[in-house]
Amino acid sequence: MNTILDQLMVVIDQRKSADPDQSYVARLMAKAPDGILKKIAEESGELILASKNGDHSNIVHELADLWFHSLVMLSHHGISHQAVLQELERRFGLSGLEEKARR
Amino acid sequence: MNTILDQLMVVIDQRKSADPDQSYVARLMAKAPDGILKKIAEESGELILASKNGDHSNIVHELADLWFHSLVMLSHHGISHQAVLQELERRFGLSGLEEKARR
Amino acid sequence: MNTILDQLMVVIDQRKSADPDQSYVARLMAKAPDGILKKIAEESGELILASKNGDHSNIVHELADLWFHSLVMLSHHGISHQAVLQELERRFGLSGLEEKARR
Amino acid sequence: MNTILDQLMVVIDQRKSADPDQSYVARLMAKAPDGILKKIAEESGELILASKNGDHSNIVHELADLWFHSLVMLSHHGISHQAVLQELERRFGLSGLEEKARR
Repeated sequence: MNTILDQLMVVIDQRKSADPDQSYVARLMAKAPDGILKKIAEESGELILASKNGDHSNIVHELADLWFHSLVMLSHHGISHQAVLQELERRFGLSGLEEKARR
Repeated sequence: MNTILDQLMVVIDQRKSADPDQSYVARLMAKAPDGILKKIAEESGELILASKNGDHSNIVHELADLWFHSLVMLSHHGISHQAVLQELERRFGLSGLEEKARR
Repeated sequence: MNTILDQLMVVIDQRKSADPDQSYVARLMAKAPDGILKKIAEESGELILASKNGDHSNIVHELADLWFHSLVMLSHHGISHQAVLQELERRFGLSGLEEKARR
Repeated sequence: MNTILDQLMVVIDQRKSADPDQSYVARLMAKAPDGILKKIAEESGELILASKNGDHSNIVHELADLWFHSLVMLSHHGISHQAVLQELERRFGLSGLEEKARR
């Protein structure tokens, strides 16, 4: 079964080679990594504001933007999102969170 | 089937009411939202540096940190991560990315 | 003697009440604080990228942007830039930096 | 006449070569640029939160932190703060703000 993140990563990888005039992903890739990283800075700032404002629909919107641009950055580096999910699994499966709690 | 994000969200929700001395999540919740949002600002900055440095293992580590703290923020607001995934699905399933491409 | 920051702060304060169609400062104030804070998040991200790229002219440009929007934020709150300069003076005049060094 | 920024920049330049065990500036320089840039990401996030919270004393404190670390970054690159002030002067003296207003 493919999750939404799996499907989205396939779409992003496909669009890397698309025409920048037709595809937002291709335009971001043409300016990578700086163009992608500017969006990550911008979206994380907007997420912080949305959270302070407590507007749930805005929080969802901004976090979708942040996760989407995170996946574009991974694709630029040729890293699978599975590596990030496995890192999260490793941390919380193998008492990773407790480990962090001891910091 | 539960994905890693599903499982992680369950763990985070459970630890909201844990003893802050024992749980990093509970400590973050005790300082919410500012304590969580400071981490999001910090982790997105570190992700940008990791990407510029091109160190794959560091990119994975910092993005896992950013996604983890994003989930803690969602839990603080009582928002499910499914809302964010559905927003992403809606955008790319219903030509959402093309919509953004036309901006 | 008025410094450049003094003069700039006067200009910003004057333009707070200008026509948003004519003045960038007035447009920012109309969306304050979020519109100003989005720029601060964006400009600090761009400063980080400029520093990593080592392009001096770009670093100067982005830092001017960041300081400018910092002053607009102060003006929105009715805080003088002198308060920030005095805080810096207090810290380094009264062994403030050494104090920080001991953290 | 030397302004507070002038004096602070002299102190920062002097401490670049100090013992990292004795000087916070020297410790930052030892980890430059990433260590400095992490602080800039962190402090701009904290400034955004302080502004949203409307706490004037906290805004002054966080902005002093952000400006201080900006100066340390300039010193790392061997750029004078005067270059940034001159860029600001150029923009607002020569109708630079109006230029931006027309964007």
